[in-house]
Amino acid sequence: MMHFDAIAESLKQDKPGFTLPQKLYVSEEAYKFDTEVMLKSVWLYACTIAHVKNPGDRFLFELGDTSVIVTRTKDGEIKAFHNSCTHRGAKLCDGAGKSARLVCPYHQWTFSLDGKLLAARNMPEEFDKAEFGLRPVALENIGGLIFLCLADNPPPIDRVKADIEEQIAIYDMTKLKVAVQDDLIEPANWKLVMENNRECYHCDASHPELLKSLSTYGFGKGLPEDGEGDVVDDAAFDAMLEAQRQRWEDLGFYHDIVEFPDNWWHRVARLPLANGAVSQTLDGKPASQKPIWPHGLNETTSLSVWTQPNSWHHFCCDHVVTFSLTPLGPEKTLLRTTWLVHEDAVEGVDYDPANLAAVWRATNAQDSHLSAVNHAGIKGDGYRPGMYSVEEKLVDAFKAFYVERSRAALGV
Amino acid sequence: MMHFDAIAESLKQDKPGFTLPQKLYVSEEAYKFDTEVMLKSVWLYACTIAHVKNPGDRFLFELGDTSVIVTRTKDGEIKAFHNSCTHRGAKLCDGAGKSARLVCPYHQWTFSLDGKLLAARNMPEEFDKAEFGLRPVALENIGGLIFLCLADNPPPIDRVKADIEEQIAIYDMTKLKVAVQDDLIEPANWKLVMENNRECYHCDASHPELLKSLSTYGFGKGLPEDGEGDVVDDAAFDAMLEAQRQRWEDLGFYHDIVEFPDNWWHRVARLPLANGAVSQTLDGKPASQKPIWPHGLNETTSLSVWTQPNSWHHFCCDHVVTFSLTPLGPEKTLLRTTWLVHEDAVEGVDYDPANLAAVWRATNAQDSHLSAVNHAGIKGDGYRPGMYSVEEKLVDAFKAFYVERSRAALGV
Amino acid sequence: MMHFDAIAESLKQDKPGFTLPQKLYVSEEAYKFDTEVMLKSVWLYACTIAHVKNPGDRFLFELGDTSVIVTRTKDGEIKAFHNSCTHRGAKLCDGAGKSARLVCPYHQWTFSLDGKLLAARNMPEEFDKAEFGLRPVALENIGGLIFLCLADNPPPIDRVKADIEEQIAIYDMTKLKVAVQDDLIEPANWKLVMENNRECYHCDASHPELLKSLSTYGFGKGLPEDGEGDVVDDAAFDAMLEAQRQRWEDLGFYHDIVEFPDNWWHRVARLPLANGAVSQTLDGKPASQKPIWPHGLNETTSLSVWTQPNSWHHFCCDHVVTFSLTPLGPEKTLLRTTWLVHEDAVEGVDYDPANLAAVWRATNAQDSHLSAVNHAGIKGDGYRPGMYSVEEKLVDAFKAFYVERSRAALGV
Repeated sequence: MMHFDAIAESLKQDKPGFTLPQKLYVSEEAYKFDTEVMLKSVWLYACTIAHVKNPGDRFLFELGDTSVIVTRTKDGEIKAFHNSCTHRGAKLCDGAGKSARLVCPYHQWTFSLDGKLLAARNMPEEFDKAEFGLRPVALENIGGLIFLCLADNPPPIDRVKADIEEQIAIYDMTKLKVAVQDDLIEPANWKLVMENNRECYHCDASHPELLKSLSTYGFGKGLPEDGEGDVVDDAAFDAMLEAQRQRWEDLGFYHDIVEFPDNWWHRVARLPLANGAVSQTLDGKPASQKPIWPHGLNETTSLSVWTQPNSWHHFCCDHVVTFSLTPLGPEKTLLRTTWLVHEDAVEGVDYDPANLAAVWRATNAQDSHLSAVNHAGIKGDGYRPGMYSVEEKLVDAFKAFYVERSRAALGV
Repeated sequence: MMHFDAIAESLKQDKPGFTLPQKLYVSEEAYKFDTEVMLKSVWLYACTIAHVKNPGDRFLFELGDTSVIVTRTKDGEIKAFHNSCTHRGAKLCDGAGKSARLVCPYHQWTFSLDGKLLAARNMPEEFDKAEFGLRPVALENIGGLIFLCLADNPPPIDRVKADIEEQIAIYDMTKLKVAVQDDLIEPANWKLVMENNRECYHCDASHPELLKSLSTYGFGKGLPEDGEGDVVDDAAFDAMLEAQRQRWEDLGFYHDIVEFPDNWWHRVARLPLANGAVSQTLDGKPASQKPIWPHGLNETTSLSVWTQPNSWHHFCCDHVVTFSLTPLGPEKTLLRTTWLVHEDAVEGVDYDPANLAAVWRATNAQDSHLSAVNHAGIKGDGYRPGMYSVEEKLVDAFKAFYVERSRAALGV
Repeated sequence: MMHFDAIAESLKQDKPGFTLPQKLYVSEEAYKFDTEVMLKSVWLYACTIAHVKNPGDRFLFELGDTSVIVTRTKDGEIKAFHNSCTHRGAKLCDGAGKSARLVCPYHQWTFSLDGKLLAARNMPEEFDKAEFGLRPVALENIGGLIFLCLADNPPPIDRVKADIEEQIAIYDMTKLKVAVQDDLIEPANWKLVMENNRECYHCDASHPELLKSLSTYGFGKGLPEDGEGDVVDDAAFDAMLEAQRQRWEDLGFYHDIVEFPDNWWHRVARLPLANGAVSQTLDGKPASQKPIWPHGLNETTSLSVWTQPNSWHHFCCDHVVTFSLTPLGPEKTLLRTTWLVHEDAVEGVDYDPANLAAVWRATNAQDSHLSAVNHAGIKGDGYRPGMYSVEEKLVDAFKAFYVERSRAALGV
């Protein structure tokens, strides 16, 4: 393993409640460390089962220089393999697609969808096909969300599975399809893009579209009507939740909020939407006319899932929006946003893709600018770790996860 | 501090009278050393007071990844701060502008123009606003030229101040305004751009526009009529200066040339213009009809100031042109050229911006090409340090300054 | 010299019959090692004598940051010099051209075509022009093919010269001219571009144009009609060669195949063309109506020369096509392809440039894509060195040369 002395040193300097030391946000070394060590030691959210809905479907997930093929086999299983031919290493697939087998474009070595080498011409006598199947990657399907881990010995995932699977089961992701997908490249370090997602301290001034349906409760914010001088009003938040609770219990889907329990890396929260909205749309109305759960299109509630270190997901009554984030460079991050609707919903009839994507497409663009401005300022000599506000508790939780796993990966 | 072993080794190999060893011109390590160590140990020319003429005006000066805001406060003082919010580090301003306060675009933390934190929402109880003002940067105003230093303990600047301030006082920069500004990115190391500025050995073949008004005396050149076979004729230069001297003494602004005295880093010279020109223009006539000094528009003289390591300035009777240089990469340099005229001069009436900028705009483009060619040739294996000609004494002086300060910064 | 510990370690891990360890294909360190050490320790093919056909002609060959001028002197000799002025290092020439002398664009120092410094203005008294000539680069002209070596002590080249010169003499390159030249930048490591050239295991699926005239015999391939299930049929290959041999002996140009003898770095093979073609063209007919050898335009034969580590050449009865390859970055390679015809052939009358270049222009584009796909897959974590097929013996030979010379250069 490479040496990451400056990273180890910076990790030691980190203080709870404060932003990270500069080198962890902006250096080439931190990018190498994150992509080659830290992010390979944890589970990463890759895509949904809807991305590989039918046998033969494949989807690519890429981290740094490593490309992984997620396939749906003939038997309907979901598998993951390194996207590199076992002959001379060529990249087998250059994107999502569908085919009965995986054929290398270079010399036509041919693999089954579950990774077996089926054909290779003119190899020496000692060559044994059984030894040259595709290299597998660890995969977990949590209620339709696919997580991958590139470590040889993946860390446990059972409690995440237990907490998430049960709660999203009501939305039955086997019945969903991908309606829209955006790939946005943000000019900022991936950790700043994550930090940006974990607070709504910046929302009032930047996200008019999002605030039409998103309640900023639960991010440590007080009541919107408190305006600039607001203080965090946990009592008001609790009272509001309590008022909804009975309805959700009556319908049979109430759960207490799961908030990064015992140092695990997931948060699951059912929250009311704001302003009486029933979906995260510009007008608060459903974006798709086919409900994706059993309770119709009139419930002002959504289930949100956040996982460390790279995803968040919102389940409404009519659609799911899911976010997967990967670094592309020290100052370059891919944010992939996917909107899912019921497989029976017909584009142009039951849903308008532009309307479905409108809120988060606008929000993502606003956040991309803020993260870029954040990164630009951190690069300079003037930066010192700053103190998080009361509204940035979840930012601190993300940062603490990053520091803790990084220290463990480095053994410092 | 990073290790710069290869830089230290190259600095030791340097020989007076010869160009620098290769690594100091072209390596990534030299760029890091220059921007993170060497250039932070000295005073750098940033801009003029005309760039922040009125209260609320701000201007950015950037060195490598570090951005500095120069502000004019409500009280008319000029201050400099790191352009990084003390909350989560976001870049406060992305360019020059004017505003009553500095408001962070991310979470709206608000600072006064003299750097005090005025507002920050929902911070923890232990938070003390007084501790989170903007971080100041050392600043000196020398007769209207603003110098900054990013060192914790800036080196002395008093003698530079004494020698320059007195001589440029006659041009009263408080009465000037910015008329034109060009940002030119040259594809060459910044030291090669500096070396290019410090000799006119290349002028005859490359700068027809400049030579209409610039006398190449004083750069170690002989008489132009000597042609290719010329030798340096110091006697002719001295005689020519002597002839002018009485006139300048009569008008009360004569000073002897100040030439990097006692290892200081400034040169100040009043010289006649060539061909009877009264301004550095294509036709030798004033570019602006409003004089910027008390002696009218008919004097064939200019005051030039050169400072190590990044500026030069020419004061004519009608305008000032001032150059600030900063590295952007190992092979990428920003040359910022600003033309100033009297604040009462009206664009389109008293001056034509294109005519005002014509000579140096053409000259900068020619020099950019020469510096790029210089850099390209130094990169190869064939390069060895070469001997400076008699006409390149000031190049050698720049190089000696660079080597001496670099050695001091590294302690070698 | 820099340290190349990771390179040395990877070189030790290399196994015959398998592709290289990952770091040797894709790392920044390997690029530095290849361009600064390995490729400077060997002879590189640069261009032909036709590129500097007449006195005053010059051509540039560039490796990494090092630029070399190949000149034809007044006396008709061919010389090579570093493209860096001995004054301040500027690049003397920025491309091929023709001139009686080499004049530096910066300060007009002037050199003869054989590298002597002729003029330099205003130098100090102790300056001696004889010490400031251009720095020479080792050059060998092998029957019209120009090889350069940037080492201080070039390795032997005599056996290469003996084997190649005699066989290509029949094509008399002094009578050829450059008809077409393509510079193609491939997004892959140079070694992968070389490996791609050294096998036709990929040809059936990728090169329809090339296979119209190229026999894949001799690359370890069997008969084309054997189809996908073919095995290597050396006997058939030998019989086919034997059938041609008598004809070539009768015409006086038969030689046995020279195949990297005794660890030397050249392969020379006269082979029949496929499908009765007499030239490597789309229709198998001559591309130029002026033969370049004494036996007319009806012989279905070509002479091919391959040299390690960066060239290959095909001589047909009517034209020569020659390939020179240089790395531009870890993942960026310049492939320069030049088509030569008889100096008396008239464009538009005797040859159509588009037709002359058609086969290899198409083939190069196909190979560029394959090499890029190869590189992309090797970058990821999933890559492990893979086993070469029976048809990839010459790939293994290239790789063995690379490893052996690299180990020698590093002393490991």
